Amino acid sequence: MSYTLGIDYGTNSVRALIVSCADGGEIGTGVFDYPSGNQGVLLDPNDHHLARQNPADYLLGLEHATLRALAQARRQRNFSAEQIIGIGVDSTGSSPLPVDATNTPLALTPKWRDHPAAQCWLWKDHTAHREAAEITRLAAQHRPHYLAKCGQVYSSEWFWSKIWRCLKTAPEVFADAESWIELCDFIPSVLAGVTNPRLAKRGVCAAGHKALYHDGWGGLPDREFLALLDPRLAELRDRLYQQACDATVAAGALCPAWAEKLGLRAGIPIAIGEMDVHYGAIGSGIKEGVLVKAIGTSTCDCAIVSGAEQVADIPGVCGVVKGAILPGYYGIEAGQSAVGDIFKWWIETICQGDAAVYQQLEAEAAALRPAQSGLLALDWNNGNRTVLVDPLLTGLLAGQTLYTTRAEVYRALIEATAFGARAIIERLKEYGVPIVSVVCCGGIAEKNPLLMQIYADTLGVTISVAGSSQACALGAAVAAAVVAGADRGGYATFAEAQARMTSLKPAGYSPHPRRRAVYDQLYTLYRRMHDAFGGADRDADLSRLMKELIRLKQENTR
Amino acid sequence: MSYTLGIDYGTNSVRALIVSCADGGEIGTGVFDYPSGNQGVLLDPNDHHLARQNPADYLLGLEHATLRALAQARRQRNFSAEQIIGIGVDSTGSSPLPVDATNTPLALTPKWRDHPAAQCWLWKDHTAHREAAEITRLAAQHRPHYLAKCGQVYSSEWFWSKIWRCLKTAPEVFADAESWIELCDFIPSVLAGVTNPRLAKRGVCAAGHKALYHDGWGGLPDREFLALLDPRLAELRDRLYQQACDATVAAGALCPAWAEKLGLRAGIPIAIGEMDVHYGAIGSGIKEGVLVKAIGTSTCDCAIVSGAEQVADIPGVCGVVKGAILPGYYGIEAGQSAVGDIFKWWIETICQGDAAVYQQLEAEAAALRPAQSGLLALDWNNGNRTVLVDPLLTGLLAGQTLYTTRAEVYRALIEATAFGARAIIERLKEYGVPIVSVVCCGGIAEKNPLLMQIYADTLGVTISVAGSSQACALGAAVAAAVVAGADRGGYATFAEAQARMTSLKPAGYSPHPRRRAVYDQLYTLYRRMHDAFGGADRDADLSRLMKELIRLKQENTR
Repeated sequence: MSYTLGIDYGTNSVRALIVSCADGGEIGTGVFDYPSGNQGVLLDPNDHHLARQNPADYLLGLEHATLRALAQARRQRNFSAEQIIGIGVDSTGSSPLPVDATNTPLALTPKWRDHPAAQCWLWKDHTAHREAAEITRLAAQHRPHYLAKCGQVYSSEWFWSKIWRCLKTAPEVFADAESWIELCDFIPSVLAGVTNPRLAKRGVCAAGHKALYHDGWGGLPDREFLALLDPRLAELRDRLYQQACDATVAAGALCPAWAEKLGLRAGIPIAIGEMDVHYGAIGSGIKEGVLVKAIGTSTCDCAIVSGAEQVADIPGVCGVVKGAILPGYYGIEAGQSAVGDIFKWWIETICQGDAAVYQQLEAEAAALRPAQSGLLALDWNNGNRTVLVDPLLTGLLAGQTLYTTRAEVYRALIEATAFGARAIIERLKEYGVPIVSVVCCGGIAEKNPLLMQIYADTLGVTISVAGSSQACALGAAVAAAVVAGADRGGYATFAEAQARMTSLKPAGYSPHPRRRAVYDQLYTLYRRMHDAFGGADRDADLSRLMKELIRLKQENTR
Repeated sequence: MSYTLGIDYGTNSVRALIVSCADGGEIGTGVFDYPSGNQGVLLDPNDHHLARQNPADYLLGLEHATLRALAQARRQRNFSAEQIIGIGVDSTGSSPLPVDATNTPLALTPKWRDHPAAQCWLWKDHTAHREAAEITRLAAQHRPHYLAKCGQVYSSEWFWSKIWRCLKTAPEVFADAESWIELCDFIPSVLAGVTNPRLAKRGVCAAGHKALYHDGWGGLPDREFLALLDPRLAELRDRLYQQACDATVAAGALCPAWAEKLGLRAGIPIAIGEMDVHYGAIGSGIKEGVLVKAIGTSTCDCAIVSGAEQVADIPGVCGVVKGAILPGYYGIEAGQSAVGDIFKWWIETICQGDAAVYQQLEAEAAALRPAQSGLLALDWNNGNRTVLVDPLLTGLLAGQTLYTTRAEVYRALIEATAFGARAIIERLKEYGVPIVSVVCCGGIAEKNPLLMQIYADTLGVTISVAGSSQACALGAAVAAAVVAGADRGGYATFAEAQARMTSLKPAGYSPHPRRRAVYDQLYTLYRRMHDAFGGADRDADLSRLMKELIRLKQENTR
């Protein structure tokens, strides 16, 4: 028997998962909640755009989560840690952190321990929105092909925006950084004992989607372009990386120090790091025609298209990157900036409710019919990632009366995220990406059947749920089995590994024809507000919108 | 010493007030909460548009509130009920009720006791929105001059819409009704012992503002026009009234039966009934140049213009009626369909908060600066009365993030009502109605200094608060003093009576220049959304709206 270890760095915790290569059986799992900040996120009460993480949490979590997973696996008869043949790592992204010449995060050095700019800049940090806008402007002028690959807008959540923001607001931190590294590349480099950031292997997943890396133009953005931003960014370029790799390449082999710390065999291979949802897509069984949606605080949507032909650039989509998810395919990533976070805001911040209130609103919302409340919302409380790529957009709720209930608003917010999901799928289809079915993973997909049914009714396709509750960690474990190879008890290809190690839950969600018809009408209204407020339609006529909502409400109330 | 009795029928209770004619001193007050329905309002869980009242509550309240006021007044040295020289009555409106040939409300007859259509159709009943639209359409086609007097749109809240709705949905109730009478006319007729509805005096206030009555076209709408609606409405016309009166005319004299019931002298005069806010305007010291705003669950705004010259018809304003408020002046009425009701919805329905939560949100909202939250709302949770005259419009909240608090939304809702108030004033000024200062009355005006300051900052004028907390009842008492006349211890004119019996509170609210400047900018955005969603601007460009909100937020946060 052989096993692999998948390690998944989420927003609030890190999870380690020990998986049987034979059948994907998950025999040990360990979770470690980041101890710093607010549920692991360092915030600034004066700047809601700021979201950082303490790198010390990552290393502490690497050890504790793995040891907990191993402790659980050992309860299994015949299991021994010697049977683990490889490790895979995924993380949130773009979550870059500055490191010194020894590959040590600046935040772990006494000098910078408490400086916000020296921490990891978490994916959802939006402090760099001005820098992102400026990169977009400069690229549109000087390197339009850069923009074409990332949906025409460079995001404040991404690598260069954040580093430039650091340079501008904390130049002393920037000056002390030898390099910057994505969290999903940093952890493999730690496990491999890499003590020079230039030797850390970088995955094409984060590089291509977040750092404007492309083989076609020689890797990262050229020095001349970076110098337009700031000459110091051009200098940094040489201290980053020349080549990013897909998952056919190993990030390294487990170093003796970490092997001892974790009780694993030194020398076992470590898969290249990918962003969580990309390995999550693999753990959910992604293939051509299947859209994988990871639904959590936000969503990330992944699709793949055979690498044999050229794929069109898709405006508003976070990137089309060859090799980003599966080697040999174009990986396409899109997403919504907030989904679960919007429900959490409504129930916890506004309603000040607990788990019982969640349950109550869920039950009341489930008893409503589409359009019955007369409400229509835009799902932009945290901006819009796809298709408008604008982190500054804000939420909107229309249709309130004096009788509107908490549950009606809750359902309207779920519906808004479903409409946002539909806008993404329509954009992908428009550009020739085949989407025949949808597989969801993540906690919300498993725990919220109301949301899943609303999504099926809104998207008009059957939706399945990934068999594993830990699809990201499972996908990392699949990559570990592939990097270990068939000879060592793993697999020669991802297709084989996925076929044996991943599954779908038996029950799915099918669209209900009547509800679907109503949601088609509501989506038309959503789209009109979306385009008017999002700037896609400057002549949008909203004068009849509320009336049409009322008409739909009347039609669907009795 | 002489005194008068003012009786004010509100939405949830009736209040009786005994006032000294010499100085307006309020020596006795009695309140009676309507026992029926939900806080006095009969609702239909299946139709949120429905709001009715049980007429039995009115008669019970007439007796109990008056007796309570008298009991309190008797604690005053030298007071005796013999000194009461007149009675004035006001009520909500348009709140018509069907009566039989003996002037008895149908709802007080055994046959119709429990039938919703036989009750009083409370002002905020919106079940007749289709009928209102049809009246508007037919009048536009056949009697455009009718519409010109009521802001170009006939409302679902008004007399004919409601009666026609009754005819259509409960023809058997309609058939049994000898006549229909506004609540503010019904109570004086009861006190005067009128047992034939054709002999009940009708005030021009409700007639002119709500029933399309106009001396210029011979009173109520002509039979031919009413027959276009339904021939039975044309027949009803003859059983209503030919002539409506201003407050120079008495509604009658106190009949022996009610004199005995209340312990008052039989034969004292009863002033003509007016709608609550019209007498409230008098109780707040209305004169030319002063806008009186009664701020409660909804608002009603009153202004007057000298009757010497012709006043232009004002689109979207609920009516311009000669003699409606003060004899000799045009009375102008406008209003907002929900103000306090919106705050109540937010705090009680959504936040499920109690008085402590009100206080807490008030304190937190007061600490915010204009534009700081990035929120912008439309105050249409109960439709829009002025200037759009559309009861079906619904609320809207834009600008939410994941950090938006309850208090921020609460303040945004207050601001939305302030912007709605400004839209009314701008419309009046546009049509030449002079507005130099604003006097507010009603509970919210006294209890919510935050709201008052936001109104001053938004409207850009100094705002005073009426000296009496019971401005409507006081105004009714002023009318009673005038109808009694100088000979009997009252006054010869309203101007004299107002000068002696009404006052303003010493402290007012002045606009703060910096906040006013920010609210000017926010109002521009409000107006853009208002016109886009309200249908006044079909080509509104909202594409930059959220961005401008964010810019204002950034400018006003530090």
